[in-house]
Amino acid sequence: MKPEFVRNAAGRAVLKVINGETAVPYRGVGAHTPEGRKAAPPLARCADYPADGNKVVADLKTALQMAGLRDGMTISSHHHFRNGDLVANQVFDAAAELGAKDLRWFPSASFPCHEPMIRHLDSGVIHHIEGSMNGPLGAYASEGKMRGTGVLRSHGGRYQAIQDGEVHVDIAVIAAPTSDPFGNCNGVQGPSACGGLGFALADAQYADRVIVVTDNLVPFPCVPWQIMGNHVDFVVVMDKIGEPEKIVSGTTNITKSPDRLLIAELTARFVEAAGILRDGFSFQAGAGGTSLAFAIFLRDMMRARNIRARFVRGGSTRYLVDMLEEGLTDYILDGQTFDLAGVTSMRDNPRHIHTNPFVSYNYHNKGNIASMVDVVVLGATEVDVNFNANVVTHSDGRLLHGIGGWQNCLFSKCTILPIPSFRDRIPVIVDEVTTLCGPGELIDVIVTERGIAINPMRTDLIAATQGSGLPIRPIEDIKSDVEALCGGAPDKPAFTDNVIAAIKWVDGTVIDVVRQVGE
Amino acid sequence: MKPEFVRNAAGRAVLKVINGETAVPYRGVGAHTPEGRKAAPPLARCADYPADGNKVVADLKTALQMAGLRDGMTISSHHHFRNGDLVANQVFDAAAELGAKDLRWFPSASFPCHEPMIRHLDSGVIHHIEGSMNGPLGAYASEGKMRGTGVLRSHGGRYQAIQDGEVHVDIAVIAAPTSDPFGNCNGVQGPSACGGLGFALADAQYADRVIVVTDNLVPFPCVPWQIMGNHVDFVVVMDKIGEPEKIVSGTTNITKSPDRLLIAELTARFVEAAGILRDGFSFQAGAGGTSLAFAIFLRDMMRARNIRARFVRGGSTRYLVDMLEEGLTDYILDGQTFDLAGVTSMRDNPRHIHTNPFVSYNYHNKGNIASMVDVVVLGATEVDVNFNANVVTHSDGRLLHGIGGWQNCLFSKCTILPIPSFRDRIPVIVDEVTTLCGPGELIDVIVTERGIAINPMRTDLIAATQGSGLPIRPIEDIKSDVEALCGGAPDKPAFTDNVIAAIKWVDGTVIDVVRQVGE
Repeated sequence: MKPEFVRNAAGRAVLKVINGETAVPYRGVGAHTPEGRKAAPPLARCADYPADGNKVVADLKTALQMAGLRDGMTISSHHHFRNGDLVANQVFDAAAELGAKDLRWFPSASFPCHEPMIRHLDSGVIHHIEGSMNGPLGAYASEGKMRGTGVLRSHGGRYQAIQDGEVHVDIAVIAAPTSDPFGNCNGVQGPSACGGLGFALADAQYADRVIVVTDNLVPFPCVPWQIMGNHVDFVVVMDKIGEPEKIVSGTTNITKSPDRLLIAELTARFVEAAGILRDGFSFQAGAGGTSLAFAIFLRDMMRARNIRARFVRGGSTRYLVDMLEEGLTDYILDGQTFDLAGVTSMRDNPRHIHTNPFVSYNYHNKGNIASMVDVVVLGATEVDVNFNANVVTHSDGRLLHGIGGWQNCLFSKCTILPIPSFRDRIPVIVDEVTTLCGPGELIDVIVTERGIAINPMRTDLIAATQGSGLPIRPIEDIKSDVEALCGGAPDKPAFTDNVIAAIKWVDGTVIDVVRQVGE
Repeated sequence: MKPEFVRNAAGRAVLKVINGETAVPYRGVGAHTPEGRKAAPPLARCADYPADGNKVVADLKTALQMAGLRDGMTISSHHHFRNGDLVANQVFDAAAELGAKDLRWFPSASFPCHEPMIRHLDSGVIHHIEGSMNGPLGAYASEGKMRGTGVLRSHGGRYQAIQDGEVHVDIAVIAAPTSDPFGNCNGVQGPSACGGLGFALADAQYADRVIVVTDNLVPFPCVPWQIMGNHVDFVVVMDKIGEPEKIVSGTTNITKSPDRLLIAELTARFVEAAGILRDGFSFQAGAGGTSLAFAIFLRDMMRARNIRARFVRGGSTRYLVDMLEEGLTDYILDGQTFDLAGVTSMRDNPRHIHTNPFVSYNYHNKGNIASMVDVVVLGATEVDVNFNANVVTHSDGRLLHGIGGWQNCLFSKCTILPIPSFRDRIPVIVDEVTTLCGPGELIDVIVTERGIAINPMRTDLIAATQGSGLPIRPIEDIKSDVEALCGGAPDKPAFTDNVIAAIKWVDGTVIDVVRQVGE
């Protein structure tokens, strides 16, 4: 049967049906109104759980069996350990041993360490992956090898999908650096400490069955309980759930590239010129080299002008922790901890707040934190002349990155993408992005080493930065310069007709699809 | 139409229909299996909420109007301020001004300060109250003056009822000592600080509309956010939401009565003799004079034997706080703070944990904290020879008390009721309790000044305390002594046939009813 397509509000042809379920095409920012009510998990009763609170079972296999593992179920996991995760592969190894087939793996993100899942995709244990596919699994999907269609969501979109009942999780497996026998658990203590466990919140709240896997069992109560044991069915103890050196890097490094440093500096100067840098302001920047450099430039400006932020959003690193400890911000509101300084700070500093996608990003909510942030600094693989941006596919068309919180952050008061104007001699500013992840109307500023482009819709920012001396230019001009330098616009990637993944918008609608790469 | 009755598993004749809805009769401890799934609140979307996070509206009346107040709705409030609450009366004054009728008031508890509600009950603004009715409102109901039937639930039962969809809250009003404009709020900061806001959790999660009322508005983020602003629709700021001196008493006092002190000491000695007092144990005791005295005796034993508790449950007082600070317990898991020392400790001590009825008490849950507590010490207005107990009606049959967490705590590993054998010359041990609140099979020990009675079902406790030298006696013997002293068994209260309230068990079934008092 040939898949049917419909053109969405962004002009993209998207699938009408994804993995057998009807999909809603993207309707524009804030234009889709969800119907109905939140998902309703089954009622439990204390009489069916051990009165002494001890939910420990022998091993993962036992827990999966007791959780009622069956063919076709959805099994979720989380990327709190990033590339150091040792649990998810074991979950599907155990499921394979139990003879399960056609499972949907629903990770909050997958990493190169999950390459062994390819065996289970090939053998039929896993039908398809819904979640970020960083690296080898993305390449596998891009080559058309996955039976089902991948579905990529932002962190907020993942919460929304579970909350709205769009994705029903049968069994959630939460790898936790510290847990008690009741299932209260956290990520700030224990040998595999990774920071927060916020990505697992939706799964804990809405999944039918919840399994906590830990390598550091402590007596009840495990405090803080980032995940409440009252959501948990079974606890499994194993020797090692993560490789600490890959969970949190000891150091995160600022870029040394002169071009990237220039971009970071221009970004910080733009923030200052636009009047955003004022007492009580807030910002979010990632943990990449350019973002870190931006944060350092901003910090120096804050020191010089004696400005204190009300809050900064993590992904936290030692640089944000230093700012907190120096009194340059009242709070870090942290969704994900990127280094050991971040973990320690989240554990010990009551002003370093553990957040989750419900409070931060969920769009089907009575507001969220993302829209309150004064300025956010994000990356992109491509942007186009209408300020639309792509974060999931590379210039060769391969699906190699996840969305993370990127789409959710676009709702900030000022969204800036500091990006190099070209990578590997391929221009980054294009006529039309290969994959649409974020609509241009939410992207306010592009900062490159060749100048700053402000979205014409943001007349306020244009007015505020006039006469600032910053190299503000039309995006088309920057594009022309780069094309002249690189020898023309980049070649379009070669695709087949086969759709290998759908990109969801924050409200669960389909904003674009990704096709199998061609020869 | 004459109400129909059915005899429940405890032999009590209970209503088949309560306020127009079919009720399930009590089936025995752990015998009722709830059907279906949790309640599903309506989906919201950020596009309908202010992007800057500012949800402040002019006043309570405006908030109620914007929340869509209509006749017959259910409005909830909470007793975090106990007898110092200034908000709930204003909510119904505003509703009256708006012309609303037949509302159901669903407080977590009501206090004498809510006597002005009688005006709204008389005028038809409020149809009936579901929740504890301490003092004047209980007397009003007992005289048959309330149109609907009162429904009393434990703290856990209130969470269960909301979670299970048994009670749908249309508008929740959460009075919060500190809030930000987004609705993130807590009870540990501000001039009206009261401790935790845990009783409002279910309402925040499940109500259609949530209004936060505060007298201490702080810039976003209000940290800690005991209630997440993402659940909140509107924020109202007023001058004063509570009378601090009535919210938390500066001091809580240990009983000076020699009889009560004896009871407290016997209770502590029993706990020791039964082998419960060991390293890593846990206990819960209330904030009444006898309970406090028990805690002091226990503390002295712990010091003497160098024993450290893993956790103690609050209601917290300065006595528990002292134990925490002295290192006699690793944690206080606190549901309700009873004095200023408790508030300060909850605010500043990371080992003083804010809990809520979901984690502590909800019976339709994957376990809860209550069943993990080694020993709990509770009060009662009456107990009978089968160890059944009453906490809601007085010897004159009037409904003057709420259930609180009492029913939920019965699930501890050892439940002790230290009670005087008579009050005002009326025996407390009877043949059959007037109102059944807790089934005897969950009540293990009765401690009176005339001896200790152990439930014959607890052969383990009987064996453990044999030869302890404690005055352990059959409950019938104690009863006989007291009757000899008081001039016979107490008169049965005079009731009419009219049922004025139903008592729910922790699973939502009806364990008993309360009738209107007669002449």
